[in-house]
Amino acid sequence: MVRDLYDVINRRRDTRREFTGEPVDPEALHRVLAAAHCAPSVGMSQPWDFVLVRSRRTLETFRDHVAQEREVFAGSLDGERAETFARIKIDGIVESGLGVVVGYDPDRGGSHVLGRHAIADAGLYSVVCAIENLWLAATAEGLGVGWVSFYREEFLADLVGFPAPVRPVAWLCVGAVDDLPDVPDLERFGWRHRSPLEEVVHEETYRLRA
Amino acid sequence: MVRDLYDVINRRRDTRREFTGEPVDPEALHRVLAAAHCAPSVGMSQPWDFVLVRSRRTLETFRDHVAQEREVFAGSLDGERAETFARIKIDGIVESGLGVVVGYDPDRGGSHVLGRHAIADAGLYSVVCAIENLWLAATAEGLGVGWVSFYREEFLADLVGFPAPVRPVAWLCVGAVDDLPDVPDLERFGWRHRSPLEEVVHEETYRLRA
Repeated sequence: MVRDLYDVINRRRDTRREFTGEPVDPEALHRVLAAAHCAPSVGMSQPWDFVLVRSRRTLETFRDHVAQEREVFAGSLDGERAETFARIKIDGIVESGLGVVVGYDPDRGGSHVLGRHAIADAGLYSVVCAIENLWLAATAEGLGVGWVSFYREEFLADLVGFPAPVRPVAWLCVGAVDDLPDVPDLERFGWRHRSPLEEVVHEETYRLRA
Repeated sequence: MVRDLYDVINRRRDTRREFTGEPVDPEALHRVLAAAHCAPSVGMSQPWDFVLVRSRRTLETFRDHVAQEREVFAGSLDGERAETFARIKIDGIVESGLGVVVGYDPDRGGSHVLGRHAIADAGLYSVVCAIENLWLAATAEGLGVGWVSFYREEFLADLVGFPAPVRPVAWLCVGAVDDLPDVPDLERFGWRHRSPLEEVVHEETYRLRA
C-alpha cells in the first residue's frame, strides 16, 4: 500500500479504463468511507451521504444515461476537438462494479450552520472535501476512482432516491485496478495539459496573465 | 513530518487558536501549493488561483470584515447557541501571518470544459479538491490551516483584485503551529459532535433516517 501523502497525491488518477471488475475488499472500502467522513465541514455539519450502488441494473441504467449526455457534449464540439474527444473513454460505471453516489444535505447541522450564513455554497464545499479524502484513501488502498459528471442531477437523484433537498454531487466509480497510469488520460489523448504552478500563484494581489 | 495518509487525514484540524506567528518555510509552502495544483479537475481545467497575502494591512482589513460578519451570525442565535458561539474563536487571520485566498476562474480551460456541460458547479468542485489537498499537505508539513467563511464574496474579490468572473472560494489562514488539537474546537466547545459513519452510508438507495 502506498500511504505517503505526497506519493498518494501524485499517483491519484481519474480512472476510466483500468477497472478489473474484481470486488472491492469490504475493509478497504470501510477505511475509504471513514476517511471521507473525517473531512472538514462547515460548522461541523458533516452534510454528506454515500449511497453504494452495486446492482447491475442500476449501474447499466446510469451508464445509458451518461452515454446520452456524452452525445450532447460531443454535439457541441467541432473539428479537432470532436475527433480528440471521440477517442476518450469517460467512464467505467459498469466495469468498476461499484458506484458511490455522494449527496449533499443542506438541512444537516440544524438551522444555524456556523460559517454558512454568508456563503450558501460552504456546505457543498464540505461535501467535495469528503470526496477528495475518499479519492486519496482509495488511491492509497490501490483502488481506482473515476468521477463521472456527464449526468443530469434530477436523473441521478431519482435513480438513488434522494429526497429533496438532498442534491447529488458526484457519481464515483470505485473499483479494483491492476495499476494506475502515470499520465492522466486527458493529457495522454491530447485534450489538455498540466499548467506550471507559477501560473496560478500570486503575491498579495491577483495579477492578470500576459 | 507525519506523512502517512490516514494519519494526516485524522490529524487535520481547522486551526484558529494555535498559530505561533513564525514565518512559514518557503520550501514547505511550495510543496503545499504544488499538492493543491495536483488536484483532480473537471476536464483538466485546473481552474484555481492562489493569492498569498502577507501584508499586515490587508490581513487586518480582512480580520475587521470577518469580525463584522461574526456579529451578523451571532445576532441570528438565541440562548444556549448564542452563549456557546460567544466562546468560539473563528479565525487566526492576523496571527497566522499568511492568508491563501483561493479563487475559481470559470473561463479557464476554454469554451468546452469536458464534464461541465451538465453540471456547472463541477468547476467549483475542482477548486475545493485543491483546497483539501492543500490542507492535508499543510498538515503533513506540521502547519495549521483555518478555513474562514465569515465574509462576503464581493468584499474579498475586491480586496485581492479578482477580476470578474473569478470567484473567491476560500480564505485559508496558513501558519506555523506548536501542535494541532486532538479534538475539533467546535466539538470541544459543545457546538456540534461527530456523527457515526453508519448514519451517512446507504446500500443501493437512500434510506430516510428514523
